[in-house]
Amino acid sequence: MAKTVIFGHKNPDTDTICSALVYADLKNKLGETAEAARLGEINKETLYALDYFQVEAPQLISKVEEGTDVILVDHNEFQQSAENIQDAKIVEVIDHHRVMNFETKEPLYFRAEPVGCTATIINKMYKENGIEVPKEMAGLLLSAIISDSLLLKSPTCTKQDVDAAHELASIAGVNLEEYGLAMLQAGADLSDKTALDLVTMDAKEFAMGDAKVEVAQVNAVDVSKVYENQADIEIEIERIISVKGLDLFLFVVTDILNNNSEVLALGTSASKVESGYGVTLENNRAFLEGVVSRKKQIVNVLTEEFTK
Amino acid sequence: MAKTVIFGHKNPDTDTICSALVYADLKNKLGETAEAARLGEINKETLYALDYFQVEAPQLISKVEEGTDVILVDHNEFQQSAENIQDAKIVEVIDHHRVMNFETKEPLYFRAEPVGCTATIINKMYKENGIEVPKEMAGLLLSAIISDSLLLKSPTCTKQDVDAAHELASIAGVNLEEYGLAMLQAGADLSDKTALDLVTMDAKEFAMGDAKVEVAQVNAVDVSKVYENQADIEIEIERIISVKGLDLFLFVVTDILNNNSEVLALGTSASKVESGYGVTLENNRAFLEGVVSRKKQIVNVLTEEFTK
Repeated sequence: MAKTVIFGHKNPDTDTICSALVYADLKNKLGETAEAARLGEINKETLYALDYFQVEAPQLISKVEEGTDVILVDHNEFQQSAENIQDAKIVEVIDHHRVMNFETKEPLYFRAEPVGCTATIINKMYKENGIEVPKEMAGLLLSAIISDSLLLKSPTCTKQDVDAAHELASIAGVNLEEYGLAMLQAGADLSDKTALDLVTMDAKEFAMGDAKVEVAQVNAVDVSKVYENQADIEIEIERIISVKGLDLFLFVVTDILNNNSEVLALGTSASKVESGYGVTLENNRAFLEGVVSRKKQIVNVLTEEFTK
Repeated sequence: MAKTVIFGHKNPDTDTICSALVYADLKNKLGETAEAARLGEINKETLYALDYFQVEAPQLISKVEEGTDVILVDHNEFQQSAENIQDAKIVEVIDHHRVMNFETKEPLYFRAEPVGCTATIINKMYKENGIEVPKEMAGLLLSAIISDSLLLKSPTCTKQDVDAAHELASIAGVNLEEYGLAMLQAGADLSDKTALDLVTMDAKEFAMGDAKVEVAQVNAVDVSKVYENQADIEIEIERIISVKGLDLFLFVVTDILNNNSEVLALGTSASKVESGYGVTLENNRAFLEGVVSRKKQIVNVLTEEFTK
C-alpha cells in the first residue's frame, strides 16, 4: 500500500509539527500507512516539546512526489503548503483556519473546525475511533494547544481546547502551567536569531483581495530587545517585499507575559494597519493592545481592510 | 438569537432540499435557531419525497441578507450558491463534493467527506449528537441517498451510503427498492418539460482550468424520447452559452434503468468530451457506457482535460 505523507505549513510551528506526527500515529493505529513530514526547520519551542517527550522530528521534505497521497494538517492555503502541492493528491485536510486558495479535482475528507488548535481536533479523532492517545502523543498534542493558545490565553482558544489541554496534561503526566511556561520561554529565546531569522521563522503569506500580504510573528519575553535590531530587520523585510512582490509585510512581536504585540509594518499598503486598528505608525511601528492572535486579530482585520 | 439559514445549491436536487430541511431539524433539536431555504424550484422527484413524507418545502430565497449566518449543504463552490453569498457569513459547510472557488475570512466548521450523499453525513451527525432521526426526516435522508446514488448503483455510492440507506428505510418504514424506483420514476417524468426546462432543471456550472463549463443532467426512462426535441434543446443551450460565456455545455441524459448516458456537447471546447472519453460526437451527441455520475465520471474527467 502506498504511503500517505502528512504535513503542516511552511515555517512550521508546534501545532503543525505535532499534529502531523500524532495524526500519523493515529493513521498507523487504524491500519493505514502514513508518515509525517515537515516543510522547514524545527523551532526552539517545538524542539523543547519533542525533546521533553522523546519523539523524533518528522522528515524534512521540500517537494511532494507527483501523485502521492497527502494529508494537510494545520493549513489549507496552497501558498503555505509544499511548492508543488498541485502535483499531489490531497486526500484529507485537518485544519482550524479559514479556507482560501484551496481546491481539489475530486471529493476529499476536509475537516476544519473553528477551534484554537489542530491538535484539539486530532484528540477528538482518537476518541471517535475508540483509540487511546499514547502518553508521548498526548504530550505533543498538549504542546500544540499551549503554543497556539499562548497557554490558553489567546482569543482563539475555545472551551474544547481548554478541556483537551487539561485532559492531555493528565495523560502526559505534566503540570499544565509549569510545562507550558517552560515551553513558551524556550521558544521565546531569540538570543541567537539574526534579523533574517526573526522575520522568517514564523511567517505566513496571505492573499487579501488583490493584495499579497505576509505576516510574521515571534513570541518574546522582552519586546524592546527584539527592536534593538530594527534597522537590520527592516532591511531584511524590504528585501522579502521586493522578491515576493508583497503589498504589505507585518512583523508582529508578541509579549507572551503581558499578551500584547508591538508591530512593524512596511510596504506600499502599510497604512492598512493604521486604518484597521485606528493607530498611527511611528518609526513604522505601532503597539496593539491585547493583540496576540494572527488568525483572529490580524488576518481577519487586514483582509477586511483590503477587501472593503 | 439570529436565525441561521441553511441551503443547498441552485437548481436544487433531492439531496440539496432534503439535507437543508433535515439539518435544520437537527440544529433546532440542538437548541440553535435554524431555518431551511432553497435557491430554486422543487423538481418532481423531490416533490414526490416531500409529499410522501408530508414535509413542507423550504422557503424560496434568491439572495441572502447581508451579514446573515448561513450554512451551505451539498455544495461549496460560490457560483453554485446564492448570488450574493460573499455578503453572508458562512458558519458551516456540510458537503460531499470537491472543494473549489470557496473562501472565507474567518475559520468555520467545514465538513466534507467523500461519500455519495450529504444526507449520509447528516445521518451520522444525529448519532454523534445522540439524537434520534424522526421518521419523516429519515424518509427525506433516504430519498436524498436514493437520488444521488441512483438507487445505490452509482460509482459515487460508498458502503456508508448503503448502510445508511438500509437503516433509514427501516426507520422511515418503507421498502427501499419499491419506494426508490417510484421516486426515481416520478423524477424521470419529463412529459411536461420544455427544452429550456430540460437544460436548466439540474444544471451546474464549473470552473475548469481557465474554462467555464456547465453540465446539465436529467434522468430518463426513455432517452430517445428526450432527444426528439434535440433542435430546440440546442437552441436553448446556444443561448445559455452566449449569455454566460461558456466554453462547453454538456447535456447529460441518464438512463435510470440501464445506467448509461447519452450526452449532447456544444461550445468551442466540445472536443474535450471526445478526447476525455475517447468517443466521436455525431450530430453533437455521444453514448457514454456506464456513465451516470456527474461528479465522479464527468466533472473529474473534463477538469483533467481542461487542465492538462
